[in-house]
Amino acid sequence: MSKIIPYKNIKYYTFAENKDFCLESGEMFGPITVAYETFGTLNEDKSNAVLIFHALTGDSHVTSSYDDDDSTPGWWDSLVGRGKEVDTDKYFVICANLLGGCMGSSGPSSINSDTNKPYGSSFPFISVNDMVNVQKKLVDSLGIKQLECVIGGSLGGMATVSMMTNYPDIARSFIVIASAYKTSSQIMAFYEVGRNAILADPYYHEGNYYGKELQPERGLGIARMVAHITYLSTTGMENKFGRMIQENVINEKLAYSRFGPMFAIESYLRHQSKKFIARFDANSYLYLTKAMDMYDLTQGGKKTLASEFSNVNKKVLIISFTSDWHFTPSDSWEMAKELARQGKDVSYINIESSYGHDSFLLPNEMQERAVESFLKNVGGK
Amino acid sequence: MSKIIPYKNIKYYTFAENKDFCLESGEMFGPITVAYETFGTLNEDKSNAVLIFHALTGDSHVTSSYDDDDSTPGWWDSLVGRGKEVDTDKYFVICANLLGGCMGSSGPSSINSDTNKPYGSSFPFISVNDMVNVQKKLVDSLGIKQLECVIGGSLGGMATVSMMTNYPDIARSFIVIASAYKTSSQIMAFYEVGRNAILADPYYHEGNYYGKELQPERGLGIARMVAHITYLSTTGMENKFGRMIQENVINEKLAYSRFGPMFAIESYLRHQSKKFIARFDANSYLYLTKAMDMYDLTQGGKKTLASEFSNVNKKVLIISFTSDWHFTPSDSWEMAKELARQGKDVSYINIESSYGHDSFLLPNEMQERAVESFLKNVGGK
Repeated sequence: MSKIIPYKNIKYYTFAENKDFCLESGEMFGPITVAYETFGTLNEDKSNAVLIFHALTGDSHVTSSYDDDDSTPGWWDSLVGRGKEVDTDKYFVICANLLGGCMGSSGPSSINSDTNKPYGSSFPFISVNDMVNVQKKLVDSLGIKQLECVIGGSLGGMATVSMMTNYPDIARSFIVIASAYKTSSQIMAFYEVGRNAILADPYYHEGNYYGKELQPERGLGIARMVAHITYLSTTGMENKFGRMIQENVINEKLAYSRFGPMFAIESYLRHQSKKFIARFDANSYLYLTKAMDMYDLTQGGKKTLASEFSNVNKKVLIISFTSDWHFTPSDSWEMAKELARQGKDVSYINIESSYGHDSFLLPNEMQERAVESFLKNVGGK
Repeated sequence: MSKIIPYKNIKYYTFAENKDFCLESGEMFGPITVAYETFGTLNEDKSNAVLIFHALTGDSHVTSSYDDDDSTPGWWDSLVGRGKEVDTDKYFVICANLLGGCMGSSGPSSINSDTNKPYGSSFPFISVNDMVNVQKKLVDSLGIKQLECVIGGSLGGMATVSMMTNYPDIARSFIVIASAYKTSSQIMAFYEVGRNAILADPYYHEGNYYGKELQPERGLGIARMVAHITYLSTTGMENKFGRMIQENVINEKLAYSRFGPMFAIESYLRHQSKKFIARFDANSYLYLTKAMDMYDLTQGGKKTLASEFSNVNKKVLIISFTSDWHFTPSDSWEMAKELARQGKDVSYINIESSYGHDSFLLPNEMQERAVESFLKNVGGK
């Protein structure tokens, strides 16, 4: 049922065996398993740990530094690993699959021990705060009193904001990249299209498709295609694909042959969609995108950014990318501005890039330098 | 099979009964029926005719001025009608359903007289130039030597560009609104997502779904949702919907109840999708969006804007809207600049609006004034 997890150093931490973990919704839930990996060595006083939150479709494998082979690249190899800016020879890096995900942590595709079947749509609604509370438990279980840093991009950045506001002393520093404290109407709309594509797939079976021969793959593929467009910038796409015609088009089915990929961009999106289907679970996509859309630090205006940021008392670095229209520079700037207004120790950098939202996952000299010097200053205090 | 067409004054012009209409692809096709409406009276020397091209999902009913009741509003009532800027008391307005459409003109849902069944996917591939060539035939059939003006927005604007370059003397003036001479990679990508949603619908049956109990409605609905987001501006959506919670949510199906519309934007998109399914044909959507994506006046760089515009010798008005990211102001500006460079009689106006691509269909004082004074000057020459 669950996707096969190819990471050999994955570890599992299970808690709330008595269903005593209280979700933000008020619902009690358990047991909860967290699949995580660690990279590097925890020092004696347990003061060199860095927690990294992955984005929507990421997992625990943030770096391949400790792999015996190159078969499973880490999703942030450009920034995290031996001798990298987040140096695993210096730091003890922890990265865990988010609650609700499909790469080892409890999620809709996990087995419900009460029924011995996957949860499917009986998995409870979860929030970004729930994901963060779960990882706080993990940090506690490792005996770590204070992390050196919490880092996250995109949804992982929202988790970092949640961590920073709910547990201001859990780390000596926080890095929020290509993120926001709430999702815009437009981006919400695109995720809603994706969710609708999954819900409309006849093989979705109200979320209980596990073990069936046919899976809601086409819906999930459409969801990925539309989201993927929002991860690239307008200019980036135009430069990379423009109106270039795809050569050597192979049509798989008659259905696709007349409206098959003709332009390179079409072929690229279909390819991305196919790769994604093989590694991700449709229910996890529904739960995680909904949690992201629902996240709003100000709770729909019931609270203010000012009040929510008032407890922040550690160093903060906020990074955005000029061509990111998923979580825009102004989303980041709003947070940086408010922290600065309150006299917090905040740095903000808006990095010139034509790669859109994806910029934070790609090698980027400026991002690497910014993270490196920020971490150096944290260590120096 | 075909959607029911509610316009009582619709007329039909059929030609190429001997399959002797040559499509841009080289394929011979026929017979071709054009469903059209006219508004106002053609004067004695047939010099007061205005041809209007509709956009992707429009039809012949550009104005309701001549309806006996208000049941069928015209899609451009704000600009076209009795006493309006495109005054049907003065002009003889012609508006025809595009070739490939589903509102009366020949399209995939039309009956193939050879088989007595709807064409479905046996309908030939068509281009924007084909659509325009068909309407040229219609204009000829009405005995009109020269039109007063050709007007179109979005895909209709592309058709206007095609008309202006292929038949430079067919009119004394041309108005191209919220359009482009080619589609960007990003917008192509969004239409590709929509087409994939239709192709992935199990009720699509390779395009031959007519007469079957279940239709590819969900795929078509997803296609509309994603396109609709590109018709609104980022700011417009944020201002109108933001993170507003939808009240009185009615969930229709259990499948939707857990991931049902929670935010107003979600509910709005589902509503738009539902309305669209009731009035549009999935195959027409595939054919027309593909034609739009394929349109490129420069033929992938084989020709230049300069060479293609060299024959233009009439007055041209180009209008764009500041917040339009579907066909951007720079798309319009590129055309206006080239016409100006060649010393053509071109006016360009970029209108401030927060309504995105949809702006051209909405009441807009600036657009109305611009069209009015432009037409006045054409008449005055």
